[in-house]
Amino acid sequence: MKDRFRIQKKLYDIIFEADTKAGKIFDIALIILIVFSITIVMLESLPGRSEVFYSSLYFMEWVVTYAFLLEYLVRLWVVRRSLQYALSFFGIIDLLAIIPSFLGLIFTGTHMLVVFRSLRLLRVFRVLKLTRYINEASHLWKALIASRNKISVFLFTVLILVTILGTLMYIVESNEASGFTSIPISIYWAVVTLTTVGYGDIAPVTALGQFLAGLVMILGYAIIAVPTGIVTSELTKVSKDTTTQVCPACLQEGHDRDAEYCKFCGEKLNV
Amino acid sequence: MKDRFRIQKKLYDIIFEADTKAGKIFDIALIILIVFSITIVMLESLPGRSEVFYSSLYFMEWVVTYAFLLEYLVRLWVVRRSLQYALSFFGIIDLLAIIPSFLGLIFTGTHMLVVFRSLRLLRVFRVLKLTRYINEASHLWKALIASRNKISVFLFTVLILVTILGTLMYIVESNEASGFTSIPISIYWAVVTLTTVGYGDIAPVTALGQFLAGLVMILGYAIIAVPTGIVTSELTKVSKDTTTQVCPACLQEGHDRDAEYCKFCGEKLNV
Amino acid sequence: MKDRFRIQKKLYDIIFEADTKAGKIFDIALIILIVFSITIVMLESLPGRSEVFYSSLYFMEWVVTYAFLLEYLVRLWVVRRSLQYALSFFGIIDLLAIIPSFLGLIFTGTHMLVVFRSLRLLRVFRVLKLTRYINEASHLWKALIASRNKISVFLFTVLILVTILGTLMYIVESNEASGFTSIPISIYWAVVTLTTVGYGDIAPVTALGQFLAGLVMILGYAIIAVPTGIVTSELTKVSKDTTTQVCPACLQEGHDRDAEYCKFCGEKLNV
Amino acid sequence: MKDRFRIQKKLYDIIFEADTKAGKIFDIALIILIVFSITIVMLESLPGRSEVFYSSLYFMEWVVTYAFLLEYLVRLWVVRRSLQYALSFFGIIDLLAIIPSFLGLIFTGTHMLVVFRSLRLLRVFRVLKLTRYINEASHLWKALIASRNKISVFLFTVLILVTILGTLMYIVESNEASGFTSIPISIYWAVVTLTTVGYGDIAPVTALGQFLAGLVMILGYAIIAVPTGIVTSELTKVSKDTTTQVCPACLQEGHDRDAEYCKFCGEKLNV
Repeated sequence: MKDRFRIQKKLYDIIFEADTKAGKIFDIALIILIVFSITIVMLESLPGRSEVFYSSLYFMEWVVTYAFLLEYLVRLWVVRRSLQYALSFFGIIDLLAIIPSFLGLIFTGTHMLVVFRSLRLLRVFRVLKLTRYINEASHLWKALIASRNKISVFLFTVLILVTILGTLMYIVESNEASGFTSIPISIYWAVVTLTTVGYGDIAPVTALGQFLAGLVMILGYAIIAVPTGIVTSELTKVSKDTTTQVCPACLQEGHDRDAEYCKFCGEKLNV
Repeated sequence: MKDRFRIQKKLYDIIFEADTKAGKIFDIALIILIVFSITIVMLESLPGRSEVFYSSLYFMEWVVTYAFLLEYLVRLWVVRRSLQYALSFFGIIDLLAIIPSFLGLIFTGTHMLVVFRSLRLLRVFRVLKLTRYINEASHLWKALIASRNKISVFLFTVLILVTILGTLMYIVESNEASGFTSIPISIYWAVVTLTTVGYGDIAPVTALGQFLAGLVMILGYAIIAVPTGIVTSELTKVSKDTTTQVCPACLQEGHDRDAEYCKFCGEKLNV
Repeated sequence: MKDRFRIQKKLYDIIFEADTKAGKIFDIALIILIVFSITIVMLESLPGRSEVFYSSLYFMEWVVTYAFLLEYLVRLWVVRRSLQYALSFFGIIDLLAIIPSFLGLIFTGTHMLVVFRSLRLLRVFRVLKLTRYINEASHLWKALIASRNKISVFLFTVLILVTILGTLMYIVESNEASGFTSIPISIYWAVVTLTTVGYGDIAPVTALGQFLAGLVMILGYAIIAVPTGIVTSELTKVSKDTTTQVCPACLQEGHDRDAEYCKFCGEKLNV
Repeated sequence: MKDRFRIQKKLYDIIFEADTKAGKIFDIALIILIVFSITIVMLESLPGRSEVFYSSLYFMEWVVTYAFLLEYLVRLWVVRRSLQYALSFFGIIDLLAIIPSFLGLIFTGTHMLVVFRSLRLLRVFRVLKLTRYINEASHLWKALIASRNKISVFLFTVLILVTILGTLMYIVESNEASGFTSIPISIYWAVVTLTTVGYGDIAPVTALGQFLAGLVMILGYAIIAVPTGIVTSELTKVSKDTTTQVCPACLQEGHDRDAEYCKFCGEKLNV
């Protein structure tokens, strides 16, 4: 019984921590396995290869799936609260990495082929297992969270804008063979143009339409500045490396993170 | 009489305020109605559907229009100064949400079809009713207003630039079948390129033209930085670390976090 | 004689200053004339219009030209140092606004048609007369001048980058019918892609080419940040509204532009 | 023997330093030679020119190669530690500028043509010899190095994002003739769209596909802000208003402009 706990503890350290050498090796092996697994899904989608190509991918796919299944079961076993892990973000992701392959076995009839195919493609969500290894993101994340309100207001404004612009272009261009066949399509065009993507599959051909489109672009040029400004000003704020620490002598704030003495009165700070 | 005032007051709270539960329900219902109404306009523009599809949309359209009419009349009735509301931004928007449908009834002759169709499409401006619910924007708005002069100077410079670049490309490319058929079209191309949209319907084919276009793009790359810089520096300024502290003597705000004395009257601040 | 000076002085105030009412009217009239003149050049380039259309434009063109000639001569007459004005930026621009029309009269032979046509198109540079009315630009200009070195280093790096990327894509794609027919064309493609313009007239078709192109785009995505960062940090610096003023009592700097009293010791500042 | 050292020393000053007049002339001559050499490689790639055109380029190419060989040998001779130079970044670049031409002599058989051709094209890497002349970059470089972690996290996130988006679009669009023929191609499309390049060779045609694509674009619009924000905040930090003042006691730098006492040791600063 004691032995079992020791093994559990050791496996926990290997799987959930990255401090030990074995833990690091496990992490690297898992990353390689994930990337390998995604590569299989991608290669499977390539058209016109030989039968051997697809069947060897199918075989490797099952090897990978059982490896992920093993990883999931071991994780469930070694954590103290299995249910909590199973319901956590990474628990669900780990489960989603296995399920599609097994569910695929159920839908074997030919009329189920579309469901089967889509299910197998969902294996690409295994890529989310990699998010476990993003630590540095917290800083960026904080800035994005902080500017959440401003960005949603901005996106809301953009949505109102593209609705109006799309309809105006539809009024102007709908009689031409330029692709503005309905308002939703025209709004799609407005999004493509305002974001400066510009595929060119839909493009105005009348003089008035091109004039309007030019205005939309210059507008897009000017408002592309807004989200950038928001995030930058947030990031600058977050990374302004002053602490909220107060000098015990003169009670002044605004000390740098590396300050040991108050820059206003020379008193030692309580670092 | 007193009853009427009480109803008026209650309706005012529901319609214009969002503090009460009824007010919140009204707001959500109105938002759903607006989105539903816009969806109708969009669906109507889809080509090649059945007769039933269009006529049921036409019916729902009138339901929505009468709902907006009712809302407009109630708003007029419950506000203290009806005329002031009617002439305000939202008063006009609310009126514009109803008028096109009724005006459409007048232009029924077949030769009026274009006017009729355009009028009905203008109903998409109902989307502006949603702007009532953007509050957070004030902060962004302030930054945009503050950088108004710089942005208009920037746009003015861009206009001068595209005029010259468009004409140069017209001189270089007008003999080729690359789409530079007139100066206005060439200016349109310059806008499309400088804003990095790049449809590709008009693109240089001569070596000199492509060289010039390359310069235009790198220029665009460099000057895309300018509006972003303007808005960011404005947003950073607005969100600067001034406290909301009020001077006890002159009652002015806007003091820096490290200020000990009021910068306007010299009074000691209560830090 | 005294009369002549008085007229000269009065005309100077009208033409060069915008303080008086007459000066403002002159400015607006000149702006309208410039815009009208540019419009003529643009309309002339439209293909397939009637003979009357082109000849009436030709007539109006000469009216505008003589108006600009008159303006130029009056400016020369009323300034104290005529030569200095004639050699200044705006003196040259004002001259360039007239010359092409008159030079056009010399090249009348049919084999001179190309020169004649190009000359007439150069009239579009009249748009530069509008730069006289950009005042606010000084602020932006200062930021751009200050970041001149960094921007040229950046552009230099981009040039080295597109040369290498273009050549690599030429090696990979030159055997396909994807438009990479020579290294200069491939470099043109690299510029089009790195600046996110993306016409689509030249696009990779091989797997390796598309992989490389994807890398170029993500690279472009990352380095589009650099010029923006440069200009923003420069603009933030310029617009940081603190003066270099020193408090006469405590000798501290960092006072806001609107400060009247030292924020550190409360002493009155010498504003 | 003494003479040899004197010549070596003099050549070193000319080649490695830019202080003397001879040194400046050498630098300019070398830059011209590099640009000339790159131009030759580019011109060689132009198709359909006369035999004389290619053979004269071939001749000039050898002249340039021997010039670079001479430069390399002299550099090896004049530096004190030849091996250290040979293994340094610029030593390798200088060697790479010569090798391809000579290696080309080995692969002369017709079946070696592809290798031969690729080798000759690698001469374009000579452009890297120009990086010797970028000094100002250090400032930008510092900001990029400092934001290295954040940018790689960002790129990692983008990679996960395009994998998922590409697969979703493949599920939605793979039955249409819109170019989404496999997952790798769809991921390539996601990169092209998210970076706002937008070639248009692959573009969604189904309503659901276009809706998804619209979301991708607005997402791209919002996250283009992130790298810009990172670099800008880094650049702003680097150029922050710290003085170059040195603490008289602990000799450390990096004090804020408003500091009166050293923040590291508490000593009074000489303001």
